[in-house]
Amino acid sequence: MSKGRILSGMRSTGRLHIGHLSVLENWVKLQDEYECFFMVADWHALTSNYADTHDMQQNIRDLVIDWMAAGLDPSKSTIFVQSHVKEHAELHLLFSMITPLSWLERVPTYKDQIAQLGKQGKDLNTYGFLGYPLLQAADILVYKANAVPVGEDQLPHLEFTREVARRFNFMYKAEIFPEPQPIIGQVALLPGIDGRKMSKSYNNFINISSESKDLAAKVNAMITDPARIKKTDPGHPEICTVHTYHTIYSAAELEDIRTKCRAGEIGCVACKKMLGAKLDELLNPIREKRAALEKNPDYVNKVLAEGAEKARSVASEVLKEVRKVMNM
Amino acid sequence: MSKGRILSGMRSTGRLHIGHLSVLENWVKLQDEYECFFMVADWHALTSNYADTHDMQQNIRDLVIDWMAAGLDPSKSTIFVQSHVKEHAELHLLFSMITPLSWLERVPTYKDQIAQLGKQGKDLNTYGFLGYPLLQAADILVYKANAVPVGEDQLPHLEFTREVARRFNFMYKAEIFPEPQPIIGQVALLPGIDGRKMSKSYNNFINISSESKDLAAKVNAMITDPARIKKTDPGHPEICTVHTYHTIYSAAELEDIRTKCRAGEIGCVACKKMLGAKLDELLNPIREKRAALEKNPDYVNKVLAEGAEKARSVASEVLKEVRKVMNM
Repeated sequence: MSKGRILSGMRSTGRLHIGHLSVLENWVKLQDEYECFFMVADWHALTSNYADTHDMQQNIRDLVIDWMAAGLDPSKSTIFVQSHVKEHAELHLLFSMITPLSWLERVPTYKDQIAQLGKQGKDLNTYGFLGYPLLQAADILVYKANAVPVGEDQLPHLEFTREVARRFNFMYKAEIFPEPQPIIGQVALLPGIDGRKMSKSYNNFINISSESKDLAAKVNAMITDPARIKKTDPGHPEICTVHTYHTIYSAAELEDIRTKCRAGEIGCVACKKMLGAKLDELLNPIREKRAALEKNPDYVNKVLAEGAEKARSVASEVLKEVRKVMNM
Repeated sequence: MSKGRILSGMRSTGRLHIGHLSVLENWVKLQDEYECFFMVADWHALTSNYADTHDMQQNIRDLVIDWMAAGLDPSKSTIFVQSHVKEHAELHLLFSMITPLSWLERVPTYKDQIAQLGKQGKDLNTYGFLGYPLLQAADILVYKANAVPVGEDQLPHLEFTREVARRFNFMYKAEIFPEPQPIIGQVALLPGIDGRKMSKSYNNFINISSESKDLAAKVNAMITDPARIKKTDPGHPEICTVHTYHTIYSAAELEDIRTKCRAGEIGCVACKKMLGAKLDELLNPIREKRAALEKNPDYVNKVLAEGAEKARSVASEVLKEVRKVMNM
């Protein structure tokens, strides 16, 4: 019945914003088709945040609660924290012995990210950051996952994982690891409220757990067509951030909104109010579920404890096979 | 009473040769002065031997038996296999996040070893080989060892370990790790039987477990003064491998040997016979103890199981402290 096993995860670096929702929606669907392992990647979070870890535990909890609020279901999927399953570290170390340094140095995103985060004052010239695609390979292969939901931009990382799997299988003459295939889900690219990429460092994001009031304020602050001064001025939806959101969240009303905007028949305030209502409707159940989970820390702890146990039981069996073929 | 805690180890890459004896003699003495952890470094052995691991388990056993035959005492010291204590891998991973890549690239031996082993057909351009001084740092610091017996050539590695300890303590505002100090023991530099460096790849070594017959054959094959054809020719001890061994193993007779050699009063055959007897006397108790241990695999298993348990109990407490200050 199941199409196989999935491993996916997110780095625990703070609350999710609505840009993450379409990824989560994909995950929620995949829960019914695959055996899913969803990992809070706290070791990966260290790669960029090692210098300040004071909010690490809060970030882990926020991420898990956001996930469950958005529909990840611990009765269907294994939800766990990476660092609770030490087998990831062991497999990473074993893989490190057979992985050419040049494979890591040539990962396309490597130098870009060092430069990008360097601008934010983060020094990523560490041994761990160079090795993080290899840690990802261990994350995936320690469960023998045969599928990984990824965005287009992560395809090189997944190809790297497949190369590591092939090299291991070849070197130790064993068919231990599958070559995991990508599941490319449709991902809505939401801009930040200022029209730039949505990002914490730009402070232009909308959290999926925003309260109605904050949500309304964020929508109000969205950049629209700057040439439009009065309501009766004709608008240019194609350059309006509010309109970009409407294309995703107001499909039924979209044609009507466009026509009226171009004709100067609907003002930006009304248009934003409409979007705000849509988003409020979308986020309301997430918010409510989140509040309920916040009040029940024991339940969250239980989910993570059971998830870690389940993950460990799978990972430790795979490690046994690995050690056997390596004679370790 | 104890001067502190020591961590030391050897890579499990085959039986020990007599070049290792002086290191082992130092270890044997240290057992009475320090709390000692002696590690069979099987993960480190992978760095150069990852492509052929068929004899890994045999190598591990051979090393442990050689150690105990030479006087390491499991009632005094903790003797264990590195890969049995997963905390080494976890601490290595955590350290990797805070360790600048350049520190590893600049370890003095790094490029030399790649070149050297490259000549033997081994490709060491791996992520794991680059990181092996960091794995050593984790090996040492996971026990909070404050002293490490090293040869002069390993001082840069120990300095690297101290730098990692300092960086961690500074970054997480915690005095968790000591800065381990070197214990530089006197190490006899024994040449191979052909006068070159004793090395498995030159096949010029004498195992500490050599049988009398093999031992005699190896001593017989030693290179002496090539200018000496007849017994009565005057010899030149300073260029004779047999003489180099006499300086270490025949202190009482040394002056006499030298005088007679220079005067052409003792032949190489007799001189070798004398050395052979000395070495046989030296290795005989090791050989006997080794044979007894070989016959008792359950005992060796028990030593390693108890050693791993003891090591884990220390390492896991240190990891708890580490995770706490890192908020992991």
